[in-house]
Amino acid sequence: MPIYNAPNKDTQFILHEVLNISGSDIPGYSELEPEFTGAVLEEAGKIATNVLHPLNVVGDTEGCRLENGVVYTPTGFKDGFAQMKEGGWTGLDMPEEYGGQNMPYVLGTAVGELFSASNQAFTMYQGLTHGAASAILAHGTEEQKNTYLPNMVSCEWTGTMNLTEPHCGTDLGLMRTKAEPQTDGSYKISGQKIFISAGEHDMADNIIHLVLAKIVGGPEGIKGVSLFIVPKYHVNEDGSLGERNGATVGNIEEKMGIHGNSTCVMNYDEATGYLLGEEHKGMRAMFTMMNEARLGVAMQGLAQADAAYQNAVEYAKDRLQGRAVTGTENPDGPADPLIVHPDIRRSLMDQKSFAEGARAFVLWGATMIDKAHRSGDKDADGLISLLTPVLKGFLTDEGYDMTVKAQQVYGGHGYIEEWGMSQYTRDARIAMIYEGANGVQALDLVGRKLAQDGGKHVMAFFEMVKTFCKENAGQNEAYDKAFIEPLKAASKDLQSAGMYFMQEGVKNPNNALSGSNDFMHMFGHVCLGLMWAQMAKAAQETLDGGTSDKEFYEAKINTGRFYMARRLPATALHLARIQTGANTVMALEAASF
Amino acid sequence: MPIYNAPNKDTQFILHEVLNISGSDIPGYSELEPEFTGAVLEEAGKIATNVLHPLNVVGDTEGCRLENGVVYTPTGFKDGFAQMKEGGWTGLDMPEEYGGQNMPYVLGTAVGELFSASNQAFTMYQGLTHGAASAILAHGTEEQKNTYLPNMVSCEWTGTMNLTEPHCGTDLGLMRTKAEPQTDGSYKISGQKIFISAGEHDMADNIIHLVLAKIVGGPEGIKGVSLFIVPKYHVNEDGSLGERNGATVGNIEEKMGIHGNSTCVMNYDEATGYLLGEEHKGMRAMFTMMNEARLGVAMQGLAQADAAYQNAVEYAKDRLQGRAVTGTENPDGPADPLIVHPDIRRSLMDQKSFAEGARAFVLWGATMIDKAHRSGDKDADGLISLLTPVLKGFLTDEGYDMTVKAQQVYGGHGYIEEWGMSQYTRDARIAMIYEGANGVQALDLVGRKLAQDGGKHVMAFFEMVKTFCKENAGQNEAYDKAFIEPLKAASKDLQSAGMYFMQEGVKNPNNALSGSNDFMHMFGHVCLGLMWAQMAKAAQETLDGGTSDKEFYEAKINTGRFYMARRLPATALHLARIQTGANTVMALEAASF
Repeated sequence: MPIYNAPNKDTQFILHEVLNISGSDIPGYSELEPEFTGAVLEEAGKIATNVLHPLNVVGDTEGCRLENGVVYTPTGFKDGFAQMKEGGWTGLDMPEEYGGQNMPYVLGTAVGELFSASNQAFTMYQGLTHGAASAILAHGTEEQKNTYLPNMVSCEWTGTMNLTEPHCGTDLGLMRTKAEPQTDGSYKISGQKIFISAGEHDMADNIIHLVLAKIVGGPEGIKGVSLFIVPKYHVNEDGSLGERNGATVGNIEEKMGIHGNSTCVMNYDEATGYLLGEEHKGMRAMFTMMNEARLGVAMQGLAQADAAYQNAVEYAKDRLQGRAVTGTENPDGPADPLIVHPDIRRSLMDQKSFAEGARAFVLWGATMIDKAHRSGDKDADGLISLLTPVLKGFLTDEGYDMTVKAQQVYGGHGYIEEWGMSQYTRDARIAMIYEGANGVQALDLVGRKLAQDGGKHVMAFFEMVKTFCKENAGQNEAYDKAFIEPLKAASKDLQSAGMYFMQEGVKNPNNALSGSNDFMHMFGHVCLGLMWAQMAKAAQETLDGGTSDKEFYEAKINTGRFYMARRLPATALHLARIQTGANTVMALEAASF
Repeated sequence: MPIYNAPNKDTQFILHEVLNISGSDIPGYSELEPEFTGAVLEEAGKIATNVLHPLNVVGDTEGCRLENGVVYTPTGFKDGFAQMKEGGWTGLDMPEEYGGQNMPYVLGTAVGELFSASNQAFTMYQGLTHGAASAILAHGTEEQKNTYLPNMVSCEWTGTMNLTEPHCGTDLGLMRTKAEPQTDGSYKISGQKIFISAGEHDMADNIIHLVLAKIVGGPEGIKGVSLFIVPKYHVNEDGSLGERNGATVGNIEEKMGIHGNSTCVMNYDEATGYLLGEEHKGMRAMFTMMNEARLGVAMQGLAQADAAYQNAVEYAKDRLQGRAVTGTENPDGPADPLIVHPDIRRSLMDQKSFAEGARAFVLWGATMIDKAHRSGDKDADGLISLLTPVLKGFLTDEGYDMTVKAQQVYGGHGYIEEWGMSQYTRDARIAMIYEGANGVQALDLVGRKLAQDGGKHVMAFFEMVKTFCKENAGQNEAYDKAFIEPLKAASKDLQSAGMYFMQEGVKNPNNALSGSNDFMHMFGHVCLGLMWAQMAKAAQETLDGGTSDKEFYEAKINTGRFYMARRLPATALHLARIQTGANTVMALEAASF
């Protein structure tokens, strides 16, 4: 049975010593004092460790079951969900008028990591609900908001997002689900949607489906797509539940992982739907919360990596195998623990330096979303829009790799389901795919975000890195050498890649797009390099000021030194690849593959 | 349902146009004319595609079942196994006197790829038998060979290898299974072994377990380990089967993949065993065939990657999604096929250039094993001994990554078991672990093989690369630039890393071992770079001489150019990491993880 401990000490360090959130002028941030966030994280950590984590293996082993149109969730999920609702966790960052607690998104994200790490499949039920509720909040009429939000904020009702159809995923313009206008202003929705997470289950009284469909007679392609609210049960005027709507589950998918979440084929058979937002502006309505949703998936990459890492550390300390090459370290035992071996260390340091760096990156991203939403800051909105594909693509690709590394520490036991390490990799795998496959993230970054607003946001990013380096160089030689210099070099690589895209992409866009995956990864490394430079600086300041917890801060600096020395130089390889352009990538005829 | 096609054209190209096997003076190679190997591969391909491949999904879905001490294999496995035996495939490279066909190992490997790619879990039953039979062949008495080999070569009886115990895997000196000498010269074996592939099943009349155990009263640790033959059923003097021996299955493991193979907990309860080889020389006896066994696992890495790649290509050509950025390519369809998109191309080229390069590397390795065994060539033995951890570690790490990339091409469908792509990653994952986890391969390479025979073999490797570059440079400018120069640069990186290990490893061995994983990977890249330089050269010669199949040879050169431009430069990153030494890797106290 795997372990899970909420990494709250690290989260608190990032929130308060690195991001200094309670000192920020973002509305709502002044309340986020260390004592307060500490208390919230502690309670959330208890739920994660005591309620969600024990259900993680159960969910994986049992999976969901479809019988006569009813989906049964794994044993214990219903009780666990009730505890989440009782604790008010489902509406932490939702408006008070609908029953939420109106906390900033950054706190929701910090808490969300604990839930996702302890049970990703379970946490998706409320995660999808949060996404659907956010779309209604942004685009719904007063009546729609009043009808749906209170029950969605409390998760008495859950929500879903219906985009994909069997023949189209990324290219939603091809969709066939249609909406026929009715005289009463509603629509009849007909079509099939697939990969609908939490599409049907037994944990809520009602399910509010948000469904993309084309209004009959509307424009062709993506410009004719609208968004509809399709409740599983009709809602009467008094708020009570009425008849069943024509939205039914056709099947649940057998998947590689996240077995505890029901992934449904949903059939809409003249189901009554209500337009959400404007006609033919469905993509905009669906994607309003895209930055948030994608940051949420980025957080899942971090969460699974950290949970797997925690177990790898335990095993490496516990399992006795071989002797340290530099001399026996456990003379009373039959062998030394795995953790003495340099290659095991290398793997654990890869994992640790990723998880802590990623946590900072995700929380920093969440503050930008708050700044954009709560302060209406356009620059923050532009920057997070630029960084969203980096967060999602880089952290889920790397997060998956880290779960594979954690599994590898276990040797043969990593391959056996009994030890639980296989589940981390199988669950983490989905985050590279959903909410826009990572190849699409890279395309979004290079094909769209780089040039957005005339390249203003990427220039601002480089300026920010430059300013940071300038302001913090020249005070501590060791710090300059370990942090500032590698960050400068990596940032320069990234700029060179951007320059290459500008120059060569004009000649042939494939020269840019062939390097999109590399660019996304090098951008991610630069961001983590920046996070580490900031964290090391904060840690050094605390050490210089005197602390009773030297070990934590010294480990922080040493972990950062590892990242800068061993991981960040990957930018040079990505740049070298990018600069070869489309030439070798596009050379073959399709028939030659 | 996934597809699988035997890549025989490519295998033939490597065997005959690159390795020129029938022109070699290795005994048995002159028979390996293109017509002959082509006919063998064609027949093997039919079995792979028509018999093994359809059972692959069945095996994954059904798995094995343990009932009252009997393990039932998935539906159809028995029939499939009968067809493998009938066709004589199980003894292809075993001696004729025991019913084999005495073919060189290189042909066995080429055929083995097809079987492994079409059904890894199934092929392991005969693979383990092959390994056990090889150990008996090398160390058995005449009586032992006559008693066991004929039935093992035909796979009427299968074999197993019993090394791991619950508390020890890599560090076998800790083992507890004991062997008590009996007055008749046999031993009573008692203990528990885990992760025993094909430990119990319903496809053979008898199972011959090779079991490592410590003779009571012998030396402590690894020096007291001996190897024993423990048949499931005793074999009477007339060859008929007698009583059941005390070797029973305790459980079968639930695993991430290879569900069609029964991974058993084996309990030995005073089971009668017969010493194989010398007392206390069990490790030597078990590992005589280590290079072969590890090359076999390297081949599995390639095999799963190629099978997954074939499907990714099909999907990328078939699935319509989006439009090419350079202009519509499928104007009559609603969208262009995925394969027009540069990032999909990049992924497919990663996969293709890996699979073809790995195939050449594996087959080249197999010729070295033949040269060592059949010609008694000590240099070949030394070189393959050096390259074995590179083959095993690099090709299974990369092979796994490639299955993940192939899965990613499918988007959401890659995560759904129905499409079969998840199985490739789940099955491929084990190859990074068994037959020595890849961290142990890296340790073997850096800690042992580099310095073996005074570093003679690694010097010979560098000399070989240098000679190749010298002999082939200066004739074709495009070839020099695309192949010779990158190969030289990568080889230089590898030499620099070796130099670093020599200089800094003396000061602190952790400086070398912290870079062992990087070194294994950079070595692998240099080997694949060498393979691609050789393949491109061979392809160019055929093109220059005129051929009706220009497309194949041009694609070969272009695929090589991709590898050299986009993949090989990874050596610089690995070198940069290595040169940071143990400093940041070993900085943390164990308690700080």
